Amino acid sequence: MPKKVRIALDAMGGDVGASVVVPGAAIALTRHPDSEFLLFGDSKLIEAELARHPALKAASRVIHTDVAVSMHDKPSVALRRGRKVSSMWLAIDAVKKGEADVAISAGNTGALAAMARFCLRMLPGIDRPALAAIWPTIRGDSVVLDLGATIGGDAHHLVALAVMGSAMASVLFDLERPTVGLLNIGVEEVKGREEIREAAELLRAMNLPQLEYIGFVEGDGIGKGAADVIVAEGFSGNIALKAAEGTARQISEYLRSAMARTWRSRIGYLFARNAFKSLRDKMDPSKSNGSVVLGLNGIVVKSHGGTDAEGFAYAVDVGYEMVRYDLLNKINQMLNRDGSAHGSAQTAQEAVS
Amino acid sequence: MPKKVRIALDAMGGDVGASVVVPGAAIALTRHPDSEFLLFGDSKLIEAELARHPALKAASRVIHTDVAVSMHDKPSVALRRGRKVSSMWLAIDAVKKGEADVAISAGNTGALAAMARFCLRMLPGIDRPALAAIWPTIRGDSVVLDLGATIGGDAHHLVALAVMGSAMASVLFDLERPTVGLLNIGVEEVKGREEIREAAELLRAMNLPQLEYIGFVEGDGIGKGAADVIVAEGFSGNIALKAAEGTARQISEYLRSAMARTWRSRIGYLFARNAFKSLRDKMDPSKSNGSVVLGLNGIVVKSHGGTDAEGFAYAVDVGYEMVRYDLLNKINQMLNRDGSAHGSAQTAQEAVS
Repeated sequence: MPKKVRIALDAMGGDVGASVVVPGAAIALTRHPDSEFLLFGDSKLIEAELARHPALKAASRVIHTDVAVSMHDKPSVALRRGRKVSSMWLAIDAVKKGEADVAISAGNTGALAAMARFCLRMLPGIDRPALAAIWPTIRGDSVVLDLGATIGGDAHHLVALAVMGSAMASVLFDLERPTVGLLNIGVEEVKGREEIREAAELLRAMNLPQLEYIGFVEGDGIGKGAADVIVAEGFSGNIALKAAEGTARQISEYLRSAMARTWRSRIGYLFARNAFKSLRDKMDPSKSNGSVVLGLNGIVVKSHGGTDAEGFAYAVDVGYEMVRYDLLNKINQMLNRDGSAHGSAQTAQEAVS
Repeated sequence: MPKKVRIALDAMGGDVGASVVVPGAAIALTRHPDSEFLLFGDSKLIEAELARHPALKAASRVIHTDVAVSMHDKPSVALRRGRKVSSMWLAIDAVKKGEADVAISAGNTGALAAMARFCLRMLPGIDRPALAAIWPTIRGDSVVLDLGATIGGDAHHLVALAVMGSAMASVLFDLERPTVGLLNIGVEEVKGREEIREAAELLRAMNLPQLEYIGFVEGDGIGKGAADVIVAEGFSGNIALKAAEGTARQISEYLRSAMARTWRSRIGYLFARNAFKSLRDKMDPSKSNGSVVLGLNGIVVKSHGGTDAEGFAYAVDVGYEMVRYDLLNKINQMLNRDGSAHGSAQTAQEAVS
């Protein structure tokens, strides 16, 4: 029997903290009974929640701290105030110390990326962290990154994202050579920001064995499943994600009101209830909750700050699976397959310039 | 009776050209019989299409040119090859010469923005063009800009977008002081790109009488109708638009397949048919086709390149309405209401620095 998956939780993270994190972990535990939890934060609040979830309580250890990173803290402030003492830091540090296999937080993205980078350090050849998530598409699932860990970045950064995203896709979707597209505002070669065009040239010149670069993908290509991996700089990746989530919520609102409008549509709704339920499940952004912070010497998962217990449980699922799939070692193998991505990118740069 | 609206069409623009543009114009003419058309492009192709639409033929004049801007041309190449001779240029030039009230093209966005800027020149105080569209939200419609006319831009550019977008919103939605939000990856003041934070400071300091700045809006805030006007730099605005369109298409695909799966859901579909139709209409991106190129001494409307005749007709509707609403004069009035936006932005800059 494989050993348990040890999950460190920032129990103070997110808009509400323990009252979402603890019940969320309880839900995830029913799905993955071979998990155990380290809960970092205000022990009074955590214990009060745990009292309602005896199975989780039996599988958990609580480590008290008074300090929590606020959703509004700048990364630099969070680091200064929260280093070594905050629930977020301690959860990440448990991974560094080998006491946990994965850390999960619904806290402030910028602070989480900064702390994870500071505490765990980056993988060789990777200079900045990225947030990667699974995006449901018409053709199946894709990996999309960066969803907001790092704002800006040059062509080399985009190439590193392509390599890390491919590693994640090949682990999750069992693909030998995932297809990779660069998010851009047109598919023609002349379109878009300079660093994106340069990254395209690099990826073509490198012709890496672990990924197949297929060109630019526009915003509407993501949902079409145009590539297994969609690479974007963190600002535009986050805008794409949120715009898609907002549209899904908007349409689900339209659907609700359209179905309630007339007696005919209400009857139709009753007949098609199961179909609607499956549709709602597909459209529910909380079911895709849980992004992986890639590029670190350790696995860190970021949950939406505003999610509920159900949603947080999905983020715990993602963390669990990343450990079970041995994601980190596989990314490392990919990065080292032909020298580090960074090294290859530099060689390719020289080749094209 | 007001005089007719004179519409110049780039009949070669878009993925297919005349076979979408001409039938599209024919549909729009039935909705706005007080329109007349100048059709620029290959007269053989145009006449062949016009033969099937006698009412449009009677309201049109064809001006032949062999030269068409390709969807793949860089703006600089399009300008060099297409200036004074291409169907796109001639349509824009008809507005400059006063022979048409509006020019409409489904051609290459970058080329259209560059040619429009070169031919019509910018309004005083505005340095670069923007693409603005009406975005359906849960709360009603919003104006979103820039959807990809200009990539990048500093805080002053974003302030100019805010002023132009407000002018468009106040004209279209009859609002005294539209609310304006800046698209960003978080609502906290510390989040996002520097130029966006700086634009926020400027808008607060300026406290313009023609718009109410309400703060940052995330990607999912657009569909919620968080503000009457959403301002983004062109790259991220385009990504948001396309991601939202892609999601709408994806969900409509899910809906179709969910409703066809069982006999119960098929019966449900029959009962709720009208509700589904109204939902599909709301979700149909082609119904929001037609973005206005703002910032010019003239009105230019951009249609999606891949649209069909129905979709192109919506772009013609937008052009018609912009003329009937006297958009350009109203934007000019707004820009000059308290000195040019540019001038005020500079003063505000000094105030905050």
